[in-house]
Amino acid sequence: MTSETTYVYDFADGSLDMKPLLGGKGANLSEMTRIGIPVPDGFTVTTAACVAAMKSGGEWPVDLWPQVEAHLDALEARTGRTLGASDKPLLVSVRSGSVFSMPGMMDTILNLGISDESAGALAKETGNERFAWDSYRRFVQMYAEVVEGAPPHIFEDELTAMKAARGVDYDTDLSADDLKELVATFRRVAKEATGTDLPTDPREQLKRSIGAVFASWDNPRANIYRNLNKIPHDLGTAVNVQQMVFGNRGDTSASGVAFTRNPATGVKELYGEYLVNAQGEDVVAGIRTGHQLPDMEKDLPKAFAEFTATMDKLEAHYGDMQDIEFTVEDNTLYILQTRAGKRTAAAALKVARDMVEAGTITKEDALRRIEPAQLDQLLHPGIDPSHGETPITKGLNASPGAAVGRVVFDADTAAECGEKGEKVVLVRWETTPDDIHGVVAAQGVLTSHGGMTSHAAVVARGMGKPCVAGCGDLRIDTAAKTATIGDRVLTETDVITLDGSTGEIYDGALKLTEAQITDDFREVLGWADEIRRLGVRANADTGPDAAKARELGAEGIGLTRTEHMFMAPDRLPVVQEMILAQDEAGRGVALDKLLPMQQADFEELFEAMTGLPVTIRLIDPPLHEFLPNLVEQSLVVQRLEDAGTTGAELDDARELLGHVRRLSEANPMLGTRGCRLLMLYPEIAVMQVRAIARAAAAVTKRGFEPHVEIMIPLVAYWQELDTLRQVAEKTWAEEAPEGIDRTIGTMIELPRAAVTADQIAQYADFFSFGTNDLTQTGVGISRDDAEGSFLQSYIDMGVVPTNPFASIDPDGVAELVRIGVEKGRGAKPGLKTGVCGEHGGDPDSITIFNKIGLDYVSCSPYRIPIARLAAARAVLGDTVKDA
Amino acid sequence: MTSETTYVYDFADGSLDMKPLLGGKGANLSEMTRIGIPVPDGFTVTTAACVAAMKSGGEWPVDLWPQVEAHLDALEARTGRTLGASDKPLLVSVRSGSVFSMPGMMDTILNLGISDESAGALAKETGNERFAWDSYRRFVQMYAEVVEGAPPHIFEDELTAMKAARGVDYDTDLSADDLKELVATFRRVAKEATGTDLPTDPREQLKRSIGAVFASWDNPRANIYRNLNKIPHDLGTAVNVQQMVFGNRGDTSASGVAFTRNPATGVKELYGEYLVNAQGEDVVAGIRTGHQLPDMEKDLPKAFAEFTATMDKLEAHYGDMQDIEFTVEDNTLYILQTRAGKRTAAAALKVARDMVEAGTITKEDALRRIEPAQLDQLLHPGIDPSHGETPITKGLNASPGAAVGRVVFDADTAAECGEKGEKVVLVRWETTPDDIHGVVAAQGVLTSHGGMTSHAAVVARGMGKPCVAGCGDLRIDTAAKTATIGDRVLTETDVITLDGSTGEIYDGALKLTEAQITDDFREVLGWADEIRRLGVRANADTGPDAAKARELGAEGIGLTRTEHMFMAPDRLPVVQEMILAQDEAGRGVALDKLLPMQQADFEELFEAMTGLPVTIRLIDPPLHEFLPNLVEQSLVVQRLEDAGTTGAELDDARELLGHVRRLSEANPMLGTRGCRLLMLYPEIAVMQVRAIARAAAAVTKRGFEPHVEIMIPLVAYWQELDTLRQVAEKTWAEEAPEGIDRTIGTMIELPRAAVTADQIAQYADFFSFGTNDLTQTGVGISRDDAEGSFLQSYIDMGVVPTNPFASIDPDGVAELVRIGVEKGRGAKPGLKTGVCGEHGGDPDSITIFNKIGLDYVSCSPYRIPIARLAAARAVLGDTVKDA
Repeated sequence: MTSETTYVYDFADGSLDMKPLLGGKGANLSEMTRIGIPVPDGFTVTTAACVAAMKSGGEWPVDLWPQVEAHLDALEARTGRTLGASDKPLLVSVRSGSVFSMPGMMDTILNLGISDESAGALAKETGNERFAWDSYRRFVQMYAEVVEGAPPHIFEDELTAMKAARGVDYDTDLSADDLKELVATFRRVAKEATGTDLPTDPREQLKRSIGAVFASWDNPRANIYRNLNKIPHDLGTAVNVQQMVFGNRGDTSASGVAFTRNPATGVKELYGEYLVNAQGEDVVAGIRTGHQLPDMEKDLPKAFAEFTATMDKLEAHYGDMQDIEFTVEDNTLYILQTRAGKRTAAAALKVARDMVEAGTITKEDALRRIEPAQLDQLLHPGIDPSHGETPITKGLNASPGAAVGRVVFDADTAAECGEKGEKVVLVRWETTPDDIHGVVAAQGVLTSHGGMTSHAAVVARGMGKPCVAGCGDLRIDTAAKTATIGDRVLTETDVITLDGSTGEIYDGALKLTEAQITDDFREVLGWADEIRRLGVRANADTGPDAAKARELGAEGIGLTRTEHMFMAPDRLPVVQEMILAQDEAGRGVALDKLLPMQQADFEELFEAMTGLPVTIRLIDPPLHEFLPNLVEQSLVVQRLEDAGTTGAELDDARELLGHVRRLSEANPMLGTRGCRLLMLYPEIAVMQVRAIARAAAAVTKRGFEPHVEIMIPLVAYWQELDTLRQVAEKTWAEEAPEGIDRTIGTMIELPRAAVTADQIAQYADFFSFGTNDLTQTGVGISRDDAEGSFLQSYIDMGVVPTNPFASIDPDGVAELVRIGVEKGRGAKPGLKTGVCGEHGGDPDSITIFNKIGLDYVSCSPYRIPIARLAAARAVLGDTVKDA
Repeated sequence: MTSETTYVYDFADGSLDMKPLLGGKGANLSEMTRIGIPVPDGFTVTTAACVAAMKSGGEWPVDLWPQVEAHLDALEARTGRTLGASDKPLLVSVRSGSVFSMPGMMDTILNLGISDESAGALAKETGNERFAWDSYRRFVQMYAEVVEGAPPHIFEDELTAMKAARGVDYDTDLSADDLKELVATFRRVAKEATGTDLPTDPREQLKRSIGAVFASWDNPRANIYRNLNKIPHDLGTAVNVQQMVFGNRGDTSASGVAFTRNPATGVKELYGEYLVNAQGEDVVAGIRTGHQLPDMEKDLPKAFAEFTATMDKLEAHYGDMQDIEFTVEDNTLYILQTRAGKRTAAAALKVARDMVEAGTITKEDALRRIEPAQLDQLLHPGIDPSHGETPITKGLNASPGAAVGRVVFDADTAAECGEKGEKVVLVRWETTPDDIHGVVAAQGVLTSHGGMTSHAAVVARGMGKPCVAGCGDLRIDTAAKTATIGDRVLTETDVITLDGSTGEIYDGALKLTEAQITDDFREVLGWADEIRRLGVRANADTGPDAAKARELGAEGIGLTRTEHMFMAPDRLPVVQEMILAQDEAGRGVALDKLLPMQQADFEELFEAMTGLPVTIRLIDPPLHEFLPNLVEQSLVVQRLEDAGTTGAELDDARELLGHVRRLSEANPMLGTRGCRLLMLYPEIAVMQVRAIARAAAAVTKRGFEPHVEIMIPLVAYWQELDTLRQVAEKTWAEEAPEGIDRTIGTMIELPRAAVTADQIAQYADFFSFGTNDLTQTGVGISRDDAEGSFLQSYIDMGVVPTNPFASIDPDGVAELVRIGVEKGRGAKPGLKTGVCGEHGGDPDSITIFNKIGLDYVSCSPYRIPIARLAAARAVLGDTVKDA
């Protein structure tokens, strides 16, 4: 009948655009075949066949097996080999291949066609009897497990028993005869376990193997994987049946891997390794040392010439640097796999620029091929990769970049040495606001406690300074000035190297590489700027940070945390004076002292960002963050009491404890902070707005052009914004001359603010989504507790795909952002919206923000290039999938 | 022209349904006039006139003043009096009256028409020259302030100066001549302040007064009030011009107030007070002692007969007990105002039942007239209202009802005395889980700290036990066993009375009244059950609580907090053993001990609720809630260290501190609790489900019919529910026989759960909205910190209309509930949804839940009747507005 469905396609009859029917692997094999790349011959059973079989409970469409046999017959004819034959046997692999990549989720059978008869022929062809029988015993094990459902341990048990009997430690110590014996043993135990003999007819084995691959589509781990990755369950998998080729058939055979360009530098040159008379695994696993690719010209000249031409063809066809696995069998070249090659950031930029200049690909395609997160490598110094040292310990990679310095244990020493130009690494249990001057002066920071969002981590990232946090192996004795890791005791005479990009710590000084903001970098980022729709701003609190951000491409400041300015050691006492004041008058005195300090800060920012918008958030954290910790102060008081101390010292300590207690909160995250503080103490808002207005007036006089955006944090109710907007407007009007650009907006960082954004928009010139806090309240996770808590277990268990503080939760928190934007713009068309949480620098989050339609993202200065590239890629859509 | 708009209506030409045009007051005066009630004559200027004037910047429609003058002419003709005349003067009031009640927000002018000429006539007619001049000087002041914008203090200053000059203390000590002099003085200072003479023509005064009332629609406080109450700003106000009548024109005149039924008992009898030759204020203000209403039959027989007939007519017309103000002027009865009379809960039920039985109103109307919250009075003992004592202090009314008992300062003493049958009141700084046995044994609880949602308050409400919390005046010395309030020192020999409904504390034993679950109560609640759509369930953790809830009408249990069972003193050590276990095996040992305890609890619940659903929530709080506090344990360790203690005692204390530290969280509300705990320690879930299943099996054998609903708390991700549902299903299948009704659902109490409810619904048989936590995360307010925090200031400032933990936030948190229901039902049509936060017992919240379409609410047992009534009223729609 001519109307029968085609369930099987030869590789020669398919192409890349048949992926829905042939799956990813099948379509790629067909595509290579189609363009004339020498691929081992074979055919693909379609996803439609799998779906049909699944629908009828495993029963195959009546046409299916005849079609497979016909294609197998043809394959045997084309290769001149026969499945299971004792002469010129054909061996095939049977591999799943679904439309969406599901690595390792479904089953594979290799070496099908091997049998008592063909094993001997394989031994002869390869001249390696041991290899032939090892391939055979592996096939029996794989087939019995995958197809017949035998439990894996029965084979492992026998293998172990055999090694014990022979008195050897490794599989490779077993002889050909041993392996031959194992084949029989494996067959026997498989029969015992499954109740039936394994079939010996290779065609029957093939039929059952295809059925097993179909069934593996529905195994539990594949189902879980599809749930997690939102892959539909009804797609089915294709099955690829492909001739096995062998690079170990003697000196005219070889296996190898190669890149079409140097993956470290991006330079177009021969780069790769090969081994004569070897299997691919030998090269990949490094069992034998490979030869450099250029040498292959001497060893196998014909295959070499064909291979270099094939590399060019593949690179041109896929439009990207390729990572290629190949085998030469009897002087015949076979390409086993090609895919986009992994490369360093510097190489990625060079390759992109070269290929665009050569006209091979467009700028858009070039941008699609560069992972934004990778750019981080270029923005910080790194450890020269040739060091060969073993790290002495590892913590969390809290802030990227590498640093070398002498160990110091307190901020004052760090500051002192730093001023003298000495390079030091600040080692602390955890840093506090009191340590800021030490962090500034140090090359990097190492803490034993605290996570990715600890004080040290946040501050270091803001400064672009390397930080390794939460290094649990580290035992610090501040009094003794020692840090112990196992047996190694570090003192202030020791030098260490830390790598904030990996979290690794090394003893001694390693060689560092410089940050690499090259011409390639600037050129490629320029293309991104042409394409992206989202604006990119910086989170910056100081003039130097703002200047750095502008240099890296920031188009304004999206978040200035004014309270960071409160934490400088010369200011903290004044802030405490404000907090401890008994009344408004007392607070007023302290605020008057803070005002000129804040004004000076703002002047720096406005100057650095002249002509660009600067968003200044009024004070956000709860006041107790500026006071000692409750537990510590309680201990101080008790110690004084127990020591019988009386008088002013005890009174003062008790009074301070009283304040700490009064301000302490069970859940400070949900407490009296942000606009709530300003509603209770509007004089703080007045002071801050006054400082902003005076700064704007002062820099305007000096010829700069400030664009001021005053931001009210933690609004839950429109009434808060209404009230504080009035306070800000009144104060501004009193201080700033006419004509300075000034808007007033709010952060949307509470779920209530998102769902009532229509009300809040009435009083806001802009919204900035504070997705850190929105994640905390939206998901109900405290960021201060997140490290090492249930969240880490969830990530390990796969309950959440990624840390929602690193990459925005797409279904939950992003939905709140979407609702906020929709309601806000609904009430006030054209309302300016941005995001200033740490997500603003995360590529996946940026893709989502672009889709939601935000106007800009704001991130720490050193994330700016990443955000620029990610914003461009968000416009361009999905990256090209691996071939 | 006949086409001119009618801007003015005589009372005789309007009716209640013209409220949008005439405003509430105007429509009511018209309505009374229409049905023949003697109301002082007058007319209403429409809201449309006000809107027209507002739109043209205050300029009146050209027809308006001629229409007012025409109606005034007619009024003068009907009354035989003339505005401002020296003989038979007509005096009028000019009052605002908008469509929605805005009490005190807009302006009123009384006695308009009084002048140098008419004041004399008024003196003659009332025989009270002092009254006439006092009325005049009040008019001048009111007019100058309201209409001409004079500042109030200038009149107060002159009044004070006059009293000083005369050497008297009170206004009432000033003579008629003094007041006459004041009229002139007031005119003079008003001119100085406003720059113009006050007009002397009463018609000009009237015109300006109407304009001033129009303008008062737009004054700031009216705007704020409308914002808060969501009243549109463009409605405008009507203006009522009404003849003034005087009850002080001699012995044929009188003023009084009366109820159509006894407001304390609901009995139909004459109830009220009157005074001959007196103004209404004299009666209301209690300046003179009134006579009982029945006596009026002798004093003013004709007016009395007319009044009693009028009372019947008003009650019948409005279908409710009325509170009526009346004046008799020269034997002519005038009704000044009628409105629904305030009454006790007992009276409300009796009135409702009597009127329904008499066929005066329908059951629906009767239910509309009973405030659900009022029922609380009947469900608890109260203080006999005749006591006449002054409270010694006042705290928060944390749990309703009254209690008398001897003061005790610790739970053990309370338990001991309670067992002996002695009545005690437990007085604590704040209660903890360790105090539960004391709370059980005590008559009531008094705490100096903690708020409406403190441990003491929550536990007491659950038990229906009176509690006054956060009584800041109380200084407790636990060691000395004293509680000091000012000078009064309470010891364990003292008896106090506390009123948890008001927060008041009295010295000594006051007489209490019993709870009153009467036939009226049962009858009326029965009507509510016929009408309501929402189911009503109870939050109950014990058999007795469940039985009580069922008695009060609960249709199941919506929330059992299994951890409350963990807090009993005999169980806490086992729970701590579980927490401190080093591994799963150690936890297993402790869990095995807890299992039979929990099983016994569940059996009690299933028996009490046989045939009805019982929702059991698996453990919810973070584990550190069961351990000592971090600060306290830190102090314990330091004290041991300082004392030089060594050995096991110090080691144990340090180990415990280690555990406390490990489990302590910066924001426990957002921490490792609920399903997060169960994901980390699934063995806890297994133990709890096993206990539930075994309990269900055991009671089934005994002939009861359990309907089990297992509830997984704090789900943020569907993956959590998927995993734990599987754990629960597996355990259930192992333990429970086939055929027992069992469902598995989740709480929706995080914003993420609400916005991803479509995903979560796939794994849930029901949703229960935990609106307490949803408020905490949705609004970003910690309930543990809410009392006395910024939230109280917000309520005081009017930023939030009500405490969002008491009544659900309609725009924010309720919107999240709505989204959750919509998405959940969208994914799973017919999904059962309920609410089990404290909002489940709040009438306003119930109205919102009814509208959202939830299936049931669940609340503490003593709120059940309130919820039943509120659910019925939610179906019936708005309550009838006051007449």
